[in-house]
Amino acid sequence: MNIYQDRIARLREHMLLQGWDAVVIGGSDPHSSEYPAPRWQHVKWLTGFTGEAGDVVITHDHAGLWTDSRYFIQAVQQLEGTGVELHKTRVPGAVGIPEWLSDRAKVVAIDGLCQSVDFIQELCESVQGIHIIDRPNMLSHLWEDRPEVPVTPITTLDVESFGGRQRMEKIEWLRKWMMLNEVDSVLLSSLDEIAWLLNVRGSDIDYNPLVISYLVVTFESVKWYVRRGGETLDPDTEDSFAELAADGVDIEEYIGICPALEMLAEYGQMSKIFTDPSSLNYHIYTTICETFAEDCVVMGTSPVILEKSVKTASEIENLRQTFIDDGVAMECFLYWLEREVAAGHEVTEWEASVKLTSLRSQIPGYRGDSFENISAYGPHAALPHYSTPQEGSAVIEPRGLYLVDSGGQYLTGTTDITRTVPMGECTYKEKEDYTLVLKGMIDLSMAVFPRGTTGHQLDALARMPLWKAGRNFGHGTGHGIGYYLCVHEGSQSIRYQANPQPLLPGMVTSNEPGLYREGCHGIRHENIVLCRESGQTEFGDWLSFETLTCCHIDTSAILPELLGPEALAWLNDYNARVYGTLAPLLPVEVAHWLKHKTLKS
Amino acid sequence: MNIYQDRIARLREHMLLQGWDAVVIGGSDPHSSEYPAPRWQHVKWLTGFTGEAGDVVITHDHAGLWTDSRYFIQAVQQLEGTGVELHKTRVPGAVGIPEWLSDRAKVVAIDGLCQSVDFIQELCESVQGIHIIDRPNMLSHLWEDRPEVPVTPITTLDVESFGGRQRMEKIEWLRKWMMLNEVDSVLLSSLDEIAWLLNVRGSDIDYNPLVISYLVVTFESVKWYVRRGGETLDPDTEDSFAELAADGVDIEEYIGICPALEMLAEYGQMSKIFTDPSSLNYHIYTTICETFAEDCVVMGTSPVILEKSVKTASEIENLRQTFIDDGVAMECFLYWLEREVAAGHEVTEWEASVKLTSLRSQIPGYRGDSFENISAYGPHAALPHYSTPQEGSAVIEPRGLYLVDSGGQYLTGTTDITRTVPMGECTYKEKEDYTLVLKGMIDLSMAVFPRGTTGHQLDALARMPLWKAGRNFGHGTGHGIGYYLCVHEGSQSIRYQANPQPLLPGMVTSNEPGLYREGCHGIRHENIVLCRESGQTEFGDWLSFETLTCCHIDTSAILPELLGPEALAWLNDYNARVYGTLAPLLPVEVAHWLKHKTLKS
Repeated sequence: MNIYQDRIARLREHMLLQGWDAVVIGGSDPHSSEYPAPRWQHVKWLTGFTGEAGDVVITHDHAGLWTDSRYFIQAVQQLEGTGVELHKTRVPGAVGIPEWLSDRAKVVAIDGLCQSVDFIQELCESVQGIHIIDRPNMLSHLWEDRPEVPVTPITTLDVESFGGRQRMEKIEWLRKWMMLNEVDSVLLSSLDEIAWLLNVRGSDIDYNPLVISYLVVTFESVKWYVRRGGETLDPDTEDSFAELAADGVDIEEYIGICPALEMLAEYGQMSKIFTDPSSLNYHIYTTICETFAEDCVVMGTSPVILEKSVKTASEIENLRQTFIDDGVAMECFLYWLEREVAAGHEVTEWEASVKLTSLRSQIPGYRGDSFENISAYGPHAALPHYSTPQEGSAVIEPRGLYLVDSGGQYLTGTTDITRTVPMGECTYKEKEDYTLVLKGMIDLSMAVFPRGTTGHQLDALARMPLWKAGRNFGHGTGHGIGYYLCVHEGSQSIRYQANPQPLLPGMVTSNEPGLYREGCHGIRHENIVLCRESGQTEFGDWLSFETLTCCHIDTSAILPELLGPEALAWLNDYNARVYGTLAPLLPVEVAHWLKHKTLKS
Repeated sequence: MNIYQDRIARLREHMLLQGWDAVVIGGSDPHSSEYPAPRWQHVKWLTGFTGEAGDVVITHDHAGLWTDSRYFIQAVQQLEGTGVELHKTRVPGAVGIPEWLSDRAKVVAIDGLCQSVDFIQELCESVQGIHIIDRPNMLSHLWEDRPEVPVTPITTLDVESFGGRQRMEKIEWLRKWMMLNEVDSVLLSSLDEIAWLLNVRGSDIDYNPLVISYLVVTFESVKWYVRRGGETLDPDTEDSFAELAADGVDIEEYIGICPALEMLAEYGQMSKIFTDPSSLNYHIYTTICETFAEDCVVMGTSPVILEKSVKTASEIENLRQTFIDDGVAMECFLYWLEREVAAGHEVTEWEASVKLTSLRSQIPGYRGDSFENISAYGPHAALPHYSTPQEGSAVIEPRGLYLVDSGGQYLTGTTDITRTVPMGECTYKEKEDYTLVLKGMIDLSMAVFPRGTTGHQLDALARMPLWKAGRNFGHGTGHGIGYYLCVHEGSQSIRYQANPQPLLPGMVTSNEPGLYREGCHGIRHENIVLCRESGQTEFGDWLSFETLTCCHIDTSAILPELLGPEALAWLNDYNARVYGTLAPLLPVEVAHWLKHKTLKS
């Protein structure tokens, strides 16, 4: 019996004792974070599966993992010998957890802290007569060495130096919103919204500079529910808490959120609370629903999401410089890579990734990568979520395409860039795909559009060159990007799927069409674009994109007849601008190399 | 006191007697038709205003007409001396009828047959304590010579010869839909839905080959509520009624619809009725709400709209030929126009319009125009809804741009086409606008897209060349077109505004970007496109457009550098195809002329 079989067996004993038919274990933390901390990696602890998306169901005679095609191969390998069966999701005829459970269980236990409201509601609709048992931290007594809630040093942002707005200004804005929307309090549970509102940062979550916490804002108080970290505070945290206290922010214990909500409901009588169910966990949701009167709970999209997505003038100014700094690291990396491979040195995907991070880390204000580098050569690049392994990653050969998707967290903003690099000779199909994806990226970059237009309306521009060739990619074209916050954020997006949020001046969005051929190659060209005002005419107010990303695009794999004259002119102009901007900042040999790379084609 | 003052005075006397504070008179018929028959032209009778959009409010001390910018000049002229004041809508600071009435009236009388459900609901929300008095045919006793409900000959369609599906097949389809949607009856009040379902046509409405009627379908019966036309039936109508009766369709009196709904509610007890509030009038709506139990009324979008918009294989086959026939008339017209003007003959907009209709009327199967021709020279073309006057229309000069938007009703389909014709020398701005609008039309024509894509997602393709130049147009890019039915229909559209309906193979839609400069010129290029399957690849199922319209596009005003090589190639190919298709069908001198017109440019 391996450790996973043992853990599942002990869970089943507990289930029997409690009278539970099934336990459902989700892959999220209490704040719907993209990367849950080790404490909330229940699925990994119970089954050994490490993929980013996976849910587990344990009944008395079955153990199953539900995950999608990105993780099929990995799941089969990691689940071997555990007795856990793979259930494929997002394939034709897939049976989801609610459907699967419908005739197999009535009493279903969950850790409500780690389940979304939507999922549990779906479960209740699918399973007739279901009885949900919500047991926060359900696995803790089996998982003896379960990690604590992370406690990392908390810093505050110096708005004067690093851009943005003062926290009191933001709190005033939120209170004005509360007044207009006739609510008496707002509960925030999404960590980037809290970090943005309070101008605080931490490192509780990988790649996202966030602090695990809840926030309750009323007209009289701001209460931050956050782990203090035992007897002695980290000095940074101590300073931060002092600064927050001076601004009237009360520091409360993280686990105090539920009693606090109960008190708020009790004392406030008919006072109305607003919260966003999309980031709320089921346990807090039920606490609110049980303690507040029905017409005192207002659910909707948090106003912080939109407000945060529109960057301020000082943030934009800093971002422009940050993308230049990031471009310096990228160009040094691309120069190094080309030289190493041309010299016949063996460079693996992993080594390239390490090199890139080390170059980025030399930039002043660097605070870590904004996500795990994707460093993928050849067929590996066809996996949009390829995770470069430290051991046994592929060697980058002097032919075909190498894809690198990476980004940095800086005090002055977050970056995200993908370059697909022709390492030598390429096949016609590689060149064709390279050119068509690039044409889509450029066509979108050149868009001009009236105020009120959504990313959904522009998405087809980035796809049309591929669509005309019967090709497509399965991910979104663009996501919002935080300011020294999450690399993926709302409110806007550029997607095939509808999203009614218009693009507004100040929004920062990725522009990243791609094309993936399993077993062959993968291509993605990604720039970050700022939506900005672009004049007025008798026909209206115009917006357009300013490309923030400052790193050349290789022209050697382009088929000019497919790119067309307009896109080619844009590309030549872009590359010339990159050279002009970066040359003075680069080591002379890199500048010299870049000059050749950016010659008109 | 002119006749309008007199009519308003008599209405006020009646209002006083009845104790009404205000009367609101709308511009629609009981079926929300685009062109109401004379019986329902209340606004014209009461005020003399003939615009297509206008609502009137009469109180004891005020008479007002609410209309939009298309009709401001016309309204001022026509309302002179009537005492009716113009209230401008869709301008900044505009006060709509509900808001205007809010502190001026409590007891408001309407003719519920001619008011939409939405408008009355808005009125009730805006005016605190409002009391709505619904008086069907309220004006009849003042309007002595008010026309009757129109009674024109009714014909049935020979599906074998003219395409489409048999009515029994369609009724079976609707009953299956009823079963799946758990309703026991469907009330249709939209005239084109009824004409489509029963395969009947009439001419009760200008330009739309429809029969004023209601239809109620249950699992046991199909009852058509339609005016019979007195003692003696028209022979065509008699034959049609016999054919319908043989198919089990009961012919009932038009005015019997309300009692019939009451009976249905009474006898059916808990039977559920489905209807679409968007085309229902307020009077029928309240009848249903008052007679049926609340949970027995199901409101939603009529399924007929989507089903009707997807043309059958036989309809598509006929449409291809119909657009060729229509193209013959168009080319003969354009040839005639160019020759007449070049010869120095005086041709007015009106004469050109008459000529075009006379050419179209020679096509076999012609049943009238599909809307009033827009024949507009120079600045007149800048008014998208210009109505060419019989007296005093402009002379078409041998310079600048002439715009003609027209279409025909044929047994084998409905057409709609706009050509903008350079009559001689054009200004640079005219050429620029002409080219940019054309580029948008062509870019949309060339689109390829995956199954599931909406017109909303493709709209930006048609606008981007204009947007990049800071220009735009205020109307939709494309509307659905009926099959020997209304020239404007749903369910799909190509619009800046969201519409979640995907484009499906078999849908026929217009592609008509434009550009309008007040006082200068107006441009619109309109082709009709069929959505069709376009192959499968490993990346999905593809759809594209087939252009049905067969009439050349003049190349003399094109700026090739603005059009770009891809669009130019499309245009040359299109013009060559038009020539190849039409040349054998045209008089030899017209074919010869067309050859020159379609030379590669």
